Amino acid sequence: MPVTITIADIERAQQRIDGLVHETPVFSSTVLNDWLGHEIFFKAECLQKIGAFKARGACNTLAWLIENNAQPERIIANSSGNHAQAVAWAAQQFNLPATIYMPGYSSKVKIQATRAYGATVELCEDRFIVDEKVKIAATEKGVYWIPPYNHPQVIAGQGTIMLEALQQVDNIDAVFAACGGGGMLSGSIISTHALSPKTKVMGVEPLNANDAAQSLRMNAIQKLTAVPDTIADGAMTLSVGDITFKYLQMLEEMYEVEEEKICYWTQWLTHLLKLRIEPTCAMTMEGVVRWLRTQKSKQRVMVILSGGNIDQRTQMSLWEQDYLDLQPQL
Amino acid sequence: MPVTITIADIERAQQRIDGLVHETPVFSSTVLNDWLGHEIFFKAECLQKIGAFKARGACNTLAWLIENNAQPERIIANSSGNHAQAVAWAAQQFNLPATIYMPGYSSKVKIQATRAYGATVELCEDRFIVDEKVKIAATEKGVYWIPPYNHPQVIAGQGTIMLEALQQVDNIDAVFAACGGGGMLSGSIISTHALSPKTKVMGVEPLNANDAAQSLRMNAIQKLTAVPDTIADGAMTLSVGDITFKYLQMLEEMYEVEEEKICYWTQWLTHLLKLRIEPTCAMTMEGVVRWLRTQKSKQRVMVILSGGNIDQRTQMSLWEQDYLDLQPQL
Repeated sequence: MPVTITIADIERAQQRIDGLVHETPVFSSTVLNDWLGHEIFFKAECLQKIGAFKARGACNTLAWLIENNAQPERIIANSSGNHAQAVAWAAQQFNLPATIYMPGYSSKVKIQATRAYGATVELCEDRFIVDEKVKIAATEKGVYWIPPYNHPQVIAGQGTIMLEALQQVDNIDAVFAACGGGGMLSGSIISTHALSPKTKVMGVEPLNANDAAQSLRMNAIQKLTAVPDTIADGAMTLSVGDITFKYLQMLEEMYEVEEEKICYWTQWLTHLLKLRIEPTCAMTMEGVVRWLRTQKSKQRVMVILSGGNIDQRTQMSLWEQDYLDLQPQL
Repeated sequence: MPVTITIADIERAQQRIDGLVHETPVFSSTVLNDWLGHEIFFKAECLQKIGAFKARGACNTLAWLIENNAQPERIIANSSGNHAQAVAWAAQQFNLPATIYMPGYSSKVKIQATRAYGATVELCEDRFIVDEKVKIAATEKGVYWIPPYNHPQVIAGQGTIMLEALQQVDNIDAVFAACGGGGMLSGSIISTHALSPKTKVMGVEPLNANDAAQSLRMNAIQKLTAVPDTIADGAMTLSVGDITFKYLQMLEEMYEVEEEKICYWTQWLTHLLKLRIEPTCAMTMEGVVRWLRTQKSKQRVMVILSGGNIDQRTQMSLWEQDYLDLQPQL
């Protein structure tokens, strides 16, 4: 039986996580709007708890377990990034112990933050060992494994981003969000289709990690055979999940973005919005301008700024070249 | 007759600029508060129009001129930084032509932004020629020169930051702000002393550009003899003004900060708050922790994040070393 997530699931998720996560603000840049001749709204999930939208899905999953009298004795997760921090933080909110399996090469800042939320961090040699260990641990009694995207309650939690955004700004013509495992995009599609059926939802992926675009072209989930070389580390996922793929197939379009365009937009959005944003979400702007170039009338676009966790090495490669010399235009 | 600015001047300034500048949000970091054991509030002027508090003073000065039937035919200013953009932006709000004299070595992003607000930019060989040209231009009929800090209405405009902040958060024990020419600090002292007399106001300056600290020690304005070598470019001013010096003498303390501490706090505040902030305002945190180390009870501190305009070269030197490995503590 196929898993279906409804707008009612997302509305219940919003009630569950209310007061635990932030209602994040929506920003816009007068200068950018003038340059492009359209209205762009930025949903600042980089200002969310733990600095990324992942707090919503992790928190909702835990709250849903407790609501259903299925409170686990221990939470586990496997991640090298924002999901690690999100699960650690969510477990702390509900006073549950958490163990997070992370590859040893994860950034120190993320390991440090995960520990700061009270989780036990198990450092493993590589991602394959991480994934193996979490699977074994998940079979233990009382343990619950929160996966990063392919889970109905994780998707319902991420769906609260657009539910909230459409309560904040109306008459949105198109929504753009980055594609990693597809959890945020799936949730955005469900919320947007339900509340604003005319609004288009579009995904954006690094060209160097375009498993979702390939999967959509082949009409079957494609898995990357090696860790992709992209600065958009939140979109390095090797493949989407079976639940998220079903929703990704409802996307209007999936844009694939070159590495230098990712850096270009990260520099410019950081500069114009004064927010710290990950390359993974800044790249969506390249999708936005490509789409706007095909539009004849003035459009109102919502861009989800999914997170703001960047380590020092990424900062250095991000700012190596100066892209601020070349002003954005259509 | 000495120039005196009162809380009434600042309250009038707030009414004048209402609707033109943003009421900026106040942020805090749960993680940082846990680590330090105190409550720190950050007034995010980096999210102000033009990305810095300077919009307030420039806007107030122009609105005040118009209110007093002294609307000039042309506005001029000399600056290599945020004041250039602020005056250009403010002039645009009132449909007045503006000419900004800038040194040719100013960052391209700032020149570009100043032009984007509709101002004519006159690039000069160096800062000395800039200052000479603006003085000559100021003698022309119908021209009004808005100086960067030593002007009662500029100071009254900057005073609205703390007027607003004290309306947003109460029971603040201490306020910390960076010292460039002293306009923001002067305004903060006037507002804070009037509205919350028990609250201490403290200044922070780069050790490498410590003309204000030297002036306070000598009890007379000291002028740096060369352009100081600091990453905190907003605090590179060679000397404070006669009006601002009078107010700076009312400060509780002036902290002087080493360059590596400036980078340390810029990395950490960027990381924790997910905001793009200039080294000039991040350095205030070093003053905060030095002061907190002397405190026995839990304190509530307001830090003014004055701006968020950073060019690519500064980004590169800022992130060259990884300071995120060393967690902040008292």
